[in-house]
Amino acid sequence: MNLKEIIEDIYENVKGIEQKGELASYIPELAKVNSENFGVHISTIDNCNFGVGNSKDKFSIQSIAKVLSLSLAYRTLGESIWERVGVEPSGTAFNSLVQLETDKGIPRNPFINAGAIVISDILISILENPKEDFLAFVRSISNDDGINYSTEISQSEKNVGFRNVALCNFIKSFDNIINDPADVLDLYFNLCSLEMNSKQLSKLFLFLANDGRRLFDNKQIITQSQSKRINALMLTCGFYDESGEFAFKVGLPGKSGVGGAIVAVHPKHYALVVWSPKLNTKGNSYKGMKFLEEFTTRTKQSIF
Amino acid sequence: MNLKEIIEDIYENVKGIEQKGELASYIPELAKVNSENFGVHISTIDNCNFGVGNSKDKFSIQSIAKVLSLSLAYRTLGESIWERVGVEPSGTAFNSLVQLETDKGIPRNPFINAGAIVISDILISILENPKEDFLAFVRSISNDDGINYSTEISQSEKNVGFRNVALCNFIKSFDNIINDPADVLDLYFNLCSLEMNSKQLSKLFLFLANDGRRLFDNKQIITQSQSKRINALMLTCGFYDESGEFAFKVGLPGKSGVGGAIVAVHPKHYALVVWSPKLNTKGNSYKGMKFLEEFTTRTKQSIF
Amino acid sequence: MNLKEIIEDIYENVKGIEQKGELASYIPELAKVNSENFGVHISTIDNCNFGVGNSKDKFSIQSIAKVLSLSLAYRTLGESIWERVGVEPSGTAFNSLVQLETDKGIPRNPFINAGAIVISDILISILENPKEDFLAFVRSISNDDGINYSTEISQSEKNVGFRNVALCNFIKSFDNIINDPADVLDLYFNLCSLEMNSKQLSKLFLFLANDGRRLFDNKQIITQSQSKRINALMLTCGFYDESGEFAFKVGLPGKSGVGGAIVAVHPKHYALVVWSPKLNTKGNSYKGMKFLEEFTTRTKQSIF
Amino acid sequence: MNLKEIIEDIYENVKGIEQKGELASYIPELAKVNSENFGVHISTIDNCNFGVGNSKDKFSIQSIAKVLSLSLAYRTLGESIWERVGVEPSGTAFNSLVQLETDKGIPRNPFINAGAIVISDILISILENPKEDFLAFVRSISNDDGINYSTEISQSEKNVGFRNVALCNFIKSFDNIINDPADVLDLYFNLCSLEMNSKQLSKLFLFLANDGRRLFDNKQIITQSQSKRINALMLTCGFYDESGEFAFKVGLPGKSGVGGAIVAVHPKHYALVVWSPKLNTKGNSYKGMKFLEEFTTRTKQSIF
Repeated sequence: MNLKEIIEDIYENVKGIEQKGELASYIPELAKVNSENFGVHISTIDNCNFGVGNSKDKFSIQSIAKVLSLSLAYRTLGESIWERVGVEPSGTAFNSLVQLETDKGIPRNPFINAGAIVISDILISILENPKEDFLAFVRSISNDDGINYSTEISQSEKNVGFRNVALCNFIKSFDNIINDPADVLDLYFNLCSLEMNSKQLSKLFLFLANDGRRLFDNKQIITQSQSKRINALMLTCGFYDESGEFAFKVGLPGKSGVGGAIVAVHPKHYALVVWSPKLNTKGNSYKGMKFLEEFTTRTKQSIF
Repeated sequence: MNLKEIIEDIYENVKGIEQKGELASYIPELAKVNSENFGVHISTIDNCNFGVGNSKDKFSIQSIAKVLSLSLAYRTLGESIWERVGVEPSGTAFNSLVQLETDKGIPRNPFINAGAIVISDILISILENPKEDFLAFVRSISNDDGINYSTEISQSEKNVGFRNVALCNFIKSFDNIINDPADVLDLYFNLCSLEMNSKQLSKLFLFLANDGRRLFDNKQIITQSQSKRINALMLTCGFYDESGEFAFKVGLPGKSGVGGAIVAVHPKHYALVVWSPKLNTKGNSYKGMKFLEEFTTRTKQSIF
Repeated sequence: MNLKEIIEDIYENVKGIEQKGELASYIPELAKVNSENFGVHISTIDNCNFGVGNSKDKFSIQSIAKVLSLSLAYRTLGESIWERVGVEPSGTAFNSLVQLETDKGIPRNPFINAGAIVISDILISILENPKEDFLAFVRSISNDDGINYSTEISQSEKNVGFRNVALCNFIKSFDNIINDPADVLDLYFNLCSLEMNSKQLSKLFLFLANDGRRLFDNKQIITQSQSKRINALMLTCGFYDESGEFAFKVGLPGKSGVGGAIVAVHPKHYALVVWSPKLNTKGNSYKGMKFLEEFTTRTKQSIF
Repeated sequence: MNLKEIIEDIYENVKGIEQKGELASYIPELAKVNSENFGVHISTIDNCNFGVGNSKDKFSIQSIAKVLSLSLAYRTLGESIWERVGVEPSGTAFNSLVQLETDKGIPRNPFINAGAIVISDILISILENPKEDFLAFVRSISNDDGINYSTEISQSEKNVGFRNVALCNFIKSFDNIINDPADVLDLYFNLCSLEMNSKQLSKLFLFLANDGRRLFDNKQIITQSQSKRINALMLTCGFYDESGEFAFKVGLPGKSGVGGAIVAVHPKHYALVVWSPKLNTKGNSYKGMKFLEEFTTRTKQSIF
């Protein structure tokens, strides 16, 4: 059975299971999505592409954007960014303020909200036109001008994002936010509102399967070492407090977003996106987790 | 430059750096070790072996034994052991009681003390002669009868192990210890007292680089899936609250012990042991961390 | 309406209300008590005594004994005991280990289990025959040889007291327990097993309404300053994490025990005991709290 | 020795001791105060007044205003305000966000910042012109139109109040703030900026020594029960995580502010203000604590 057949087969299996999860409800705009959507797309570094289900429907990538904002900050500042954000799993829920207090305003890692907000602050300091420049960076990775922010989503999130306002001001009270919290949050809410479909997202993340080089012209986006390290971070911190579970059951670096997408990267091989909007209690796509667990079990291909 | 030369080269570099760490002091017997010891040994799945420095000197493997006790419990009980211990990084210091309270007596993972104590409890329930049977299991993996417990170490640890007594009784108060705490702790202190040298330890851990099969006769010790999952756990939880850092900088599954040893596993390739007794502030070998970071940087071989 | 009539009146009111609480279940022997028992007794410093209901039935005073063990340690060592235990409310559940970790083994106050265990350790260090000497001290306060330990209760508690074993060993790991944990816990479980009836208990606590002097011969048991300070501690810390609520609604220093008794002290006036075994969710007598709130509302006599 | 002589005597003693504390530094405007200021004033319910030192110099009462805003909200809404804020000591530092997370946005008590912010939110909902109406309420208590806000202080606090912005938005994320966070914080920063001298402050707080009635015409400001309960709250929660210590050593209800003032209330007797700007590590006036401890020791007058 080849990769295409395995994906189709698992897709049919998982499509049929009862969805125990819930749509993300705290962002009103996200709650409007059709919860039956279910799409999968794989892109390989030898230029194969295969999608199934709603793989051409756009969605909000949400926290998955944190990998992209980190990539841009990391390639600009190098290892010095780790003075402002850690590389350890948080061990608690994705929006907890507790550890920030203990750790004096240094977020545990760049993939929890607190960490991504610090990365946004860094981007504001280093970019001339933060929103435009970041979008241009993302588009340049896969040569895809079809990627855009969603104003509805960012506005919807801004209207209810009191906890993120709290996080940003709390970190500022420890002097780990340099710019005006309102500007930092504006960029942060925009990053999270990036929209694309499963195919676009899997092609976008191929650079992390390709030692940091974008596929279409092999240009180095980030260094090989940076690419390995971002993969390591995705493995240990990519799924909030279900990161250990994902490493354990799926065995690949990956990142999820509350929009219901998960992207998994098999270094030297592929990037695989699953999108299904209903989330489990930890905030990760219910069917996405099932699909990927089944996928690496069947292919026996994991990094372990 | 081949593997042997790289190891020799890094060994010389790291040997010369100033040791900032401290000997583990809370176990009196461990504090007697010569802090200048520094040994490295690599064993590959194609039967190559190479050692340098004090690679033939025995040491106490301490927490590294937690991987072995987990292996024995896991192969006997299968996935049901995860009802009693989790698979998530702990996010806090290795002996914290805080999360146990929140998590109602279910330790975060089998590599923190609390988790290893629960695994000891499981072993007492499933083994006829726990101490003897566990030792026989360990010896059988690498066909090595030279591996033994150290009575001095286990006794020394027992005399000062009040925090572990606290942990065990605390978990018992949540009904997640079945047997008498005194028996559970007796086994636990013995497991941690296992002694061997770097060569023995690297040969022992080769089964995790070999999909769960021991090398000398290819017999399956644990299943391939179990082997991958234990590797995943080592990557996310093997270094207390420095696990993210190790994944980030070294990029291999591994486990450290306060005796100063670190074992790193590259699936399909090798097991590599570094031993140097002085520990950094997180309780991991100072030179061991340096050596391994340099090693995967130079070989560009990590799982990411 | 005089005090006797007010007590009788409230007694009838509270007797009739539905009991929402639960018997303490974690100590098997306590769960055998008839949950309908309801007794009240008041003793005043001008030698008036009045009881109603089951005021002559004995019960286990449990944590109320912590005030007595503190009194004995305090009068012997003076202010130096505060080097080993604090005077601040704990803010969390009565058996939490969390703050002990933050506070390096110094319990928040002498009325949480951790603090009372440290006081037991102190008593072992300063008394020749701890159990006998403590009992003699208690009896001497109200000249009452009818007060005794209950072997059944202390044994019952010992059989299930894993959390207290954990606490004691945890504190020992911070070097704030000097003696053998087994000895400390043996004394601790005995202290908590003291038995007496409501009348005996209210007469016993009169010394705290009398500036530290026992009533029958006006002899100073503890100094006036010590008496005031113990009253202050009862007010801020006497009811676990319902201490604020008790100060707020009742407005008197007091102490509760899981045996269902509460003793309240009005300095210069009286000691009042209510006993009803069913406990609210915070571990304090459900009817006891109702009775006392009503009592100070009706008499308009509180310290505020 | 009468009260006046005792005060003068203690004043001289405490004036001479070395000041170990620090000026509040996080609000720039507060750091400009002369740290040598030291004033005391007592007002009794039988109309005696006595002051010493800088008792006529104005200062920022800061958190002491939280008692006044609570009084206004409490008299308007009655017991229903306790659905939105608790009455328990917090057990942790005064600006901690940890417990808010556990307690789902219900602050532990109205005297920590989080609780006072919720009270500010309540005032905005119930007052037509919150700032003006609150000031009028305060002035009406002691018939003193000389009490005013300080624009410099409120502005200075607003410029650096990131942690309070965090708190307010965090509580809002739990739906326990009804109004716009910016409005709530604007009122909050104004409340804290109230200025008066020691004499004015002690006369103002006399209503809490007088069962809720203002002295000059005996009009009930809050009910007797409310007055007792606010006194109870001051005793258990008035000094952040030093509340137990204050109850223990001073034995009176009281409230401190980072401006260096402490007001202590002896029900049925007096209100006593001490002002000295250098703070101990818990954020309470260093000399203020010393003075009051000495005062109740010498007068032997405490509520215990």
